[in-house]
Amino acid sequence: MALPVRRRLPVLSLLLLEAGGLRAAERSSSAMEEIATEKEAEESHRQDSVSLLTFILLLTLTILTIWLFKHRRVRFLHETGLAMIYGLIVGVILRYGTPSTSGRDKPFSCSQENRPFTTLLVNVSGKFFEYTLKGEISPGKIHNVEQNDMLRKVTFDPEVFFNILLPPIIFHAGYSLKKRHFFRNLGSILAYAFLGTAVSCFIIGNLMYGVVKLMKLVGQLSDKFYYTDCLLFGAIISATDPVTVLAIFNELHADVDLYALLFGESVLNDAVAIVLSSSIVAYQPTGENTHAFDAAAFFKSVGVFLGIFSGSFMMGAVTGVVTALVTKFTKLHCFPLLETALFFLMSWSTFLLAEACGFTGVVAVLFCGITQAHYTYNNLSVESRSRTKQLFEVLHFLAENFIFSYMGLALFTFQKHIFSPVFIVGAFVAIFLGRAAHIYPLSFLLNLGRRHKISWSFQHMMMFSGLRGAMAFALAIRDTATYSHQMMFSTTLLIVFFTVWIVGGGTTPMLSWLNIRVGVDPDQDPPPTNDSFQVLQGDGPDSERRNRMKQESAWLFRLWYSFDHNYLKPILTHSGPPLTTTLPSWCGLIARCLTSPQVYDNQEQLREEDSDFILNDGDLTVTYGDTTITANGSSGPHTATTSLDGRRTKSSSEEALERDLGAADHEVTSRGTRLVFPLEDNA
Amino acid sequence: MALPVRRRLPVLSLLLLEAGGLRAAERSSSAMEEIATEKEAEESHRQDSVSLLTFILLLTLTILTIWLFKHRRVRFLHETGLAMIYGLIVGVILRYGTPSTSGRDKPFSCSQENRPFTTLLVNVSGKFFEYTLKGEISPGKIHNVEQNDMLRKVTFDPEVFFNILLPPIIFHAGYSLKKRHFFRNLGSILAYAFLGTAVSCFIIGNLMYGVVKLMKLVGQLSDKFYYTDCLLFGAIISATDPVTVLAIFNELHADVDLYALLFGESVLNDAVAIVLSSSIVAYQPTGENTHAFDAAAFFKSVGVFLGIFSGSFMMGAVTGVVTALVTKFTKLHCFPLLETALFFLMSWSTFLLAEACGFTGVVAVLFCGITQAHYTYNNLSVESRSRTKQLFEVLHFLAENFIFSYMGLALFTFQKHIFSPVFIVGAFVAIFLGRAAHIYPLSFLLNLGRRHKISWSFQHMMMFSGLRGAMAFALAIRDTATYSHQMMFSTTLLIVFFTVWIVGGGTTPMLSWLNIRVGVDPDQDPPPTNDSFQVLQGDGPDSERRNRMKQESAWLFRLWYSFDHNYLKPILTHSGPPLTTTLPSWCGLIARCLTSPQVYDNQEQLREEDSDFILNDGDLTVTYGDTTITANGSSGPHTATTSLDGRRTKSSSEEALERDLGAADHEVTSRGTRLVFPLEDNA
Repeated sequence: MALPVRRRLPVLSLLLLEAGGLRAAERSSSAMEEIATEKEAEESHRQDSVSLLTFILLLTLTILTIWLFKHRRVRFLHETGLAMIYGLIVGVILRYGTPSTSGRDKPFSCSQENRPFTTLLVNVSGKFFEYTLKGEISPGKIHNVEQNDMLRKVTFDPEVFFNILLPPIIFHAGYSLKKRHFFRNLGSILAYAFLGTAVSCFIIGNLMYGVVKLMKLVGQLSDKFYYTDCLLFGAIISATDPVTVLAIFNELHADVDLYALLFGESVLNDAVAIVLSSSIVAYQPTGENTHAFDAAAFFKSVGVFLGIFSGSFMMGAVTGVVTALVTKFTKLHCFPLLETALFFLMSWSTFLLAEACGFTGVVAVLFCGITQAHYTYNNLSVESRSRTKQLFEVLHFLAENFIFSYMGLALFTFQKHIFSPVFIVGAFVAIFLGRAAHIYPLSFLLNLGRRHKISWSFQHMMMFSGLRGAMAFALAIRDTATYSHQMMFSTTLLIVFFTVWIVGGGTTPMLSWLNIRVGVDPDQDPPPTNDSFQVLQGDGPDSERRNRMKQESAWLFRLWYSFDHNYLKPILTHSGPPLTTTLPSWCGLIARCLTSPQVYDNQEQLREEDSDFILNDGDLTVTYGDTTITANGSSGPHTATTSLDGRRTKSSSEEALERDLGAADHEVTSRGTRLVFPLEDNA
Repeated sequence: MALPVRRRLPVLSLLLLEAGGLRAAERSSSAMEEIATEKEAEESHRQDSVSLLTFILLLTLTILTIWLFKHRRVRFLHETGLAMIYGLIVGVILRYGTPSTSGRDKPFSCSQENRPFTTLLVNVSGKFFEYTLKGEISPGKIHNVEQNDMLRKVTFDPEVFFNILLPPIIFHAGYSLKKRHFFRNLGSILAYAFLGTAVSCFIIGNLMYGVVKLMKLVGQLSDKFYYTDCLLFGAIISATDPVTVLAIFNELHADVDLYALLFGESVLNDAVAIVLSSSIVAYQPTGENTHAFDAAAFFKSVGVFLGIFSGSFMMGAVTGVVTALVTKFTKLHCFPLLETALFFLMSWSTFLLAEACGFTGVVAVLFCGITQAHYTYNNLSVESRSRTKQLFEVLHFLAENFIFSYMGLALFTFQKHIFSPVFIVGAFVAIFLGRAAHIYPLSFLLNLGRRHKISWSFQHMMMFSGLRGAMAFALAIRDTATYSHQMMFSTTLLIVFFTVWIVGGGTTPMLSWLNIRVGVDPDQDPPPTNDSFQVLQGDGPDSERRNRMKQESAWLFRLWYSFDHNYLKPILTHSGPPLTTTLPSWCGLIARCLTSPQVYDNQEQLREEDSDFILNDGDLTVTYGDTTITANGSSGPHTATTSLDGRRTKSSSEEALERDLGAADHEVTSRGTRLVFPLEDNA
């Protein structure tokens, strides 16, 4: 999709500078002025190194302090909060401790009649120099071009966040999605992510429009602030990132369903928020009054949203599927290095492919991650599994802490902050109300259909955990050209600081205040009677419950499960029932080609690995535990192998699903991913 | 060091674009021309994505074909050769299959009186646009600026190679250095790397100067080609990279000493070649005749060489030592993710630190890798060891194959090739002679002092394995501004192609033709009587040999061993003898502080891990085996634990060394790294 904010050449292009034709300047002529230019370039290179070193030092300090905190079990401050604090400190030093201006790069004006060219040749006393277009500068700000050199050096192109730092974070989120609990709560997660984000965006947008109107009345507003800007702010700030909360949940082994709801919501909600903000930016009504409501433009925006979202989803899913097929049909798993490299390249190519097609790379990468975890992961060798997990874990860790320390830095080094107290207070109230208006009504509606009700304490916790993080920051910094966007950026920064420090720090007290169970072994189900869990308890007899369950789990989901289990899994991985049994007989040849011989042998083994994909470094990742669990906790990973009953049984997925559903009191065997449904046993 | 070739802003700065003050251009104004610019930027972003996708596709194809080759045990073509072939094919397609020029970015000329500014403000019908200086263009080549868009897109800034792709390759080389065999042959390796590279550089330089003179006579030379250019070519082409040969050695388990010699030489020789080429570029005689010999400038160059080399060495060693201390004195190993991230950041900071101080980052990274492997590696947790190894292995693999496929691409997409048949033939002859003049005489001299003689077949193999690879390419592409440099670049490219394909492919036949043992278990010593090993056999009685050995191993090396074993190892790692026993008594307090309690307990355990650091993924890395070996093969890793004799024994390193030396027929215990000397047992 065409994003007006993506005007500047993004970072990818910066890596692709043209070497051809422009090297003449590098001749080792001995003219004094060239040596001067050389010295300048060298000096600039040195400053770049120093500024990158600054960030590395920041990260190193953060790592060491995190270790100290973990070592002493300090929980009130998460690593991201810490990274921000160090960033702040360095920001203050850079702002007030370095000389204010260098004045070396004096701008030169020269008049030209046409529209600007991207390349400019300038004749300087007979020599030709090439210049490239950087951007327009509003006449009032020409003097701003001369600014503190060091501050400029530590200021990154916003596209760095979108093209370099976010993809590994988002991919990791998708790749480490705890499948079982995610699918168990899929409906609610989708509702929170799509409906919730939209509701939150519109409520915040409208409230902020009221605030802006008020500011105009009071005379606090010095430039334009349109309704679309307010909506954009709503979209930006609706991207929640409860990384701190989840880290603490993880450490304390808090309730797994709550975890799944929060994690799933925040992962998908990032994707929704990006696409939503793109759609709002794409809302450009035609005609004179460019900021009034226009139905055509509105529907175009909705179309853009749907188009980008589904397109990005498809891109991600397709590359994931291709990777799964490649890893299935080659014996690449004998060479883990090759396999890991291929996995990395394919995942990265999703991003590029989506960007090349005009979709959103970050969203594509998310769905690619989910697909890779669901299918490709099963085909990888054991070594590659840990390699890919660890690789993306490290990348995710570095990128995330980098963004947070950059946020701290940006509070002081960003040169165009506009802090408006009214707007900031309004924004805090708006996000509070927006979150409330999104969590409580939606939870009420969901509870009507949910068997596993979302309890009040869970709802309060979800309300409380609506932290803002990396994604909101990246969306806000993407376009800081206008007055309104600058104000939005400054406010977003403050909101992120507040939520990460105050809300993040209050998670542990909040958990105990809300009486939410901690220390839950994820392999075990909630104990039969528990205060916060009473709503979850079923009460009918076993068979009745099972029937109800089957009605509850929507036909769409059942259809998907059956399709995935019978066709996708067997085609894309070495698990699932042999295709020869699930496909109609006239597809015999294809079925035999696509079914790998391992299917017959490896079913049991793969079932286990497959049925619960997780990253098992419980310490820093947002996941926990690494054992296969069934809903009623009766079967561990190695006990569920009672019926190794040959190749023919359970060819119909209905049957497999039934067995899963009926797994309340006996051990189960299922093929492929076991989507275990919540069944409590009162007995 | 100040490199004139480093005129252009390097890649690091590209990541650090200024966000401040220049965002005004991003305002979402509705003017048609802005939308046009937007569309252009978007189009450019799309093209960037496509060109990066091209490279990813290339790498993916390469990986899949490598797998096929490995699967079918094809050895005549290495993965790097394959990457080049695919690169070539895509290069041909891009060159002849895409429309030749876009003409979109027509350059605009405007006259200016002063010297060029780095920033330019241009007034276009009332709006101000900012331009940045890209470089000078020689008047004759102005039309070259308009060129095939796609070709420009796939052409990278040469600094990408130096700042992004080479560091992981070089770090990996240092980190995976097989310590035992490396140290056993340290003297020879240093001689080959320093003396050999210098000799080779001067011989090739002088021969090429003769060729250039000849070309001038024949009238084949159309522009200037100075003596310093010839020397620079000598330095560039002296960087050997026998990656193919080593991969085959590894696969066939060829002789370990030969492997160590080749690997050690090529690793250090890269560092020497970089610094040598910098020094040659720095050779700028003053006065009128700028290209005649000038003693002052020559000695300045030598000084520059020594300064850069030792400075970079120090940088690398210091960051390695700091990392070792940090990992020793924190309990970071409880959190492998933090540890890995810290390790990665510290290693990267070496590069930046060296660049910020004006040294050579790549060289610093090499020595950092060696230090990390020697000390830090011992302090890491088991998980971090494999994580760091795997992380750098993947990075190395991707970077290396990327460079080689780029080389293939560059043959067709690089726009300024100058292929001069005379020069090319001359260069091939010169590198052959240069390699011969470096290997044979040096080996002769070394054999005078070596106990373990370097046999003729080894010398022939080393002569044959003088492949050129990534480093030569990166050095050559760094400056392609002048006629001479363009010719050098084209020739280097051809030499790399030739050596990788022909010489690399001929390794296996050559090995068998030279009767070099393959299928050697690295844990075993050569059998007592073997054709190619006869020179290695000692003949005196045991004690005499031991004495001779002690004289042979130079006092400098013994000093270093003793210092490392008694002080560095105990300070930096948890191994070695307790400092309380090695330091004089008045250092008691410091010694107690620095000695970790584990030293007393962990000695035996660490000894093993420590004494032979290797990457044990034998398949793709250039290392092999993973067991501790002593020279005579009598003691495996778990047998050398006979005398767990408390804390006091062997406080003197002399004693430990003696024991190591006397290990010919009884099992040994040593602390820290065991530098086992070659002792053959005839009995």
